[in-house]
Amino acid sequence: MRKVFQAELHQIGEGLIEISALVEEAVSKASAAFAAADLQAAQEVIAADARIDFLQNDLDERAIDVLALQGPVASDLRMIVGSLRMSASLERMGDLARHIAQLTRLRFPNTVIPAQLRETFAELARQDIIIAAKVSELLESRNLELVADISTAKIEINKLHKSVFATMASPEWAETPATTVDVTLASRYFERFGDHGVSVARKVSYLVTGEWQPEDFLAG
Amino acid sequence: MRKVFQAELHQIGEGLIEISALVEEAVSKASAAFAAADLQAAQEVIAADARIDFLQNDLDERAIDVLALQGPVASDLRMIVGSLRMSASLERMGDLARHIAQLTRLRFPNTVIPAQLRETFAELARQDIIIAAKVSELLESRNLELVADISTAKIEINKLHKSVFATMASPEWAETPATTVDVTLASRYFERFGDHGVSVARKVSYLVTGEWQPEDFLAG
Repeated sequence: MRKVFQAELHQIGEGLIEISALVEEAVSKASAAFAAADLQAAQEVIAADARIDFLQNDLDERAIDVLALQGPVASDLRMIVGSLRMSASLERMGDLARHIAQLTRLRFPNTVIPAQLRETFAELARQDIIIAAKVSELLESRNLELVADISTAKIEINKLHKSVFATMASPEWAETPATTVDVTLASRYFERFGDHGVSVARKVSYLVTGEWQPEDFLAG
Repeated sequence: MRKVFQAELHQIGEGLIEISALVEEAVSKASAAFAAADLQAAQEVIAADARIDFLQNDLDERAIDVLALQGPVASDLRMIVGSLRMSASLERMGDLARHIAQLTRLRFPNTVIPAQLRETFAELARQDIIIAAKVSELLESRNLELVADISTAKIEINKLHKSVFATMASPEWAETPATTVDVTLASRYFERFGDHGVSVARKVSYLVTGEWQPEDFLAG
């Protein structure tokens, strides 16, 4: 019985890693599509999100079955409840990558971001991709040094996000309102993606150490 | 034992109702503060959000204790896992009400929304308040007729949200970029608040009927 249970726990962990890998792929591809106004790639990200949703539902169902059949306690129980929460965060990261792809599709054949902010958005994307990659690695290795890296990336994202708003508030900003709307939404999507990554990292850290990281440390 | 368990389940249900009541208060007060540029009320909403976060953590801890100590199965188990998800959605609704209050504070003594969109935002707020009130009522009564009302309100919100974007894209829109940014974020906050309300409603419906409502029915 115990052996079956450990195998089931392991499978749930593997399920999270699989979803995280798809999220990583989604944000990389969505960011590239977004930067290059690549409609084909954007469509692929949008279509692929259904798979993430499916895997999340599937993982959640399995987790609930384990709760029902095994009645786990203590750290095993926390691991399963934590998995339900992490899968929800990962699913939301997938949605946000999809939103970035949808903005790309909406403005095709134009790019969403005007020239003066392209570098900033490239950096936002780069930091989100770092977060997604480190979250995958963290789920696999449970190496808590990665939590600090994720935190550092999020602090960077917060700065970039603020600088986007400062640029739009400056007297030199002469873009159309439609562009201002798009830039606002896009910056928010990249920023929220990072938040959910931090949230997964905090959960892993909690599961490993049994203690919550102070939120201001990680959210920056 | 069974009696203790039922009492604990009941307490978790009461906990959700309590959080939902605070969310309802938060969105009502935040909306009023937002419309009237009422700094005092905005500050109160921002301060009160910590209470919602605390109650959510507390409820989640109790739910996990029940899982550990009682090892519930079948519908009891689904109810507890559902509660963890609903508390997360309610907590997020509290955050979004806080974001609306924070925008109010940021632009004080000005109002955030320019005259031509004030009516639209009043209606967005009205629909969100309906959703919050009906979610509270639904958690209390489990009367599934309320789910359709919540769905109807969300369809209305989606229309209003789209009309805000259409207004900003029209050639007559002559507001500053800062206002365009604020309107974009505010509309998104009101819209996401409704999404989370729908998500809670779907969960209650699932717990009562054992079947998922198709998402397109509810998301409109």
